[in-house]
Amino acid sequence: MSYEKNRLLIQTLRECVEACNYCFQACLKEENVKMMVECIRLDRECADMCAFLERELTIDSSFAHDLAEICSKICEACGNECQKHEHDHCQKCAESCFKCAKACKDIA
Amino acid sequence: MSYEKNRLLIQTLRECVEACNYCFQACLKEENVKMMVECIRLDRECADMCAFLERELTIDSSFAHDLAEICSKICEACGNECQKHEHDHCQKCAESCFKCAKACKDIA
Amino acid sequence: MSYEKNRLLIQTLRECVEACNYCFQACLKEENVKMMVECIRLDRECADMCAFLERELTIDSSFAHDLAEICSKICEACGNECQKHEHDHCQKCAESCFKCAKACKDIA
Amino acid sequence: MSYEKNRLLIQTLRECVEACNYCFQACLKEENVKMMVECIRLDRECADMCAFLERELTIDSSFAHDLAEICSKICEACGNECQKHEHDHCQKCAESCFKCAKACKDIA
Repeated sequence: MSYEKNRLLIQTLRECVEACNYCFQACLKEENVKMMVECIRLDRECADMCAFLERELTIDSSFAHDLAEICSKICEACGNECQKHEHDHCQKCAESCFKCAKACKDIA
Repeated sequence: MSYEKNRLLIQTLRECVEACNYCFQACLKEENVKMMVECIRLDRECADMCAFLERELTIDSSFAHDLAEICSKICEACGNECQKHEHDHCQKCAESCFKCAKACKDIA
Repeated sequence: MSYEKNRLLIQTLRECVEACNYCFQACLKEENVKMMVECIRLDRECADMCAFLERELTIDSSFAHDLAEICSKICEACGNECQKHEHDHCQKCAESCFKCAKACKDIA
Repeated sequence: MSYEKNRLLIQTLRECVEACNYCFQACLKEENVKMMVECIRLDRECADMCAFLERELTIDSSFAHDLAEICSKICEACGNECQKHEHDHCQKCAESCFKCAKACKDIA
């Protein structure tokens, strides 16, 4: 994978990690937290998966392509859940997740 | 720190990681999830802090003592929250957290 | 996946994490560290991948099967490298890695 | 801690994570890897500590201040080691580490 493509993916993953973690803590503060349960669960998984792939890319891992494939699936699942909710943090998170899912699929 | 003490601490941290992660996903399934919000938040932090310290111990880090001090605080906070709830997973998690808080304080 | 199978896999992953992290720091102390470079690199990746999968299993992630497939590949790569070296920590690590690779493949 | 200060710190931590991980894999490729052993060891610890603190900040953890204090120590230790070596990746890493150590101390 070219260095430049790598840099863009790292940046996209980073934004997704932050969006998911922000959404995670914001969901926990929502009045109707019951409705946000799947979102909370997936936000944690997606943030940690993206952070893991990002780390693997920075150490030039041979397994980055394989991990990117799964990361793409998790981002998509998280984006699908987030987009159901109209909270700003969910909508913003869904956007980051879909962007990241696509970027991961491109290198997988 | 002696190797044996180290081994016991690693085991205690491990049990705390599992108890917190189990409690995390069980809390998300509770009927009254609103009441569990602080528990969910602290379970994640406590699990990840304990996992981090455990890792640092296995690579013989010079910063393990400093990290154990904070880990002790996080375990105590998580234990204090968990013990308020009568769910089995919370009570078991509180027990693991307090045991781990003590073990961390001992080496800090 | 049955709970019991899950428990055994978590235990196997845990042993692999510890063997890899122990091997990582022991390799760095070897006289001929130049020869251990690939081992050091893979020990870190394998430890962190196994720790990640272990965490995903404890929170009952839907992506555990996919992750187990990659984890199996990384364990195999790390085991193949470690078994080339006659140091005790490398031989022990190779054994843990191959055991873990098999356990991961079984659930993938 | 104000949101803006938080944002700057997250960015500084992020740069430090990347510099450390880049230095880690570059050190492993150096001809004289024996000389880089401490650097490799500290790069891993520093990268992972900074990544952990960064995550804690994004979920608005109450323990961020305590963690920042230790993170500052680890960054300083890593910076001190890296600056001994004239490789570009070490000098760049030292710079990121010292910047990050200072930023962490400011909020600790």
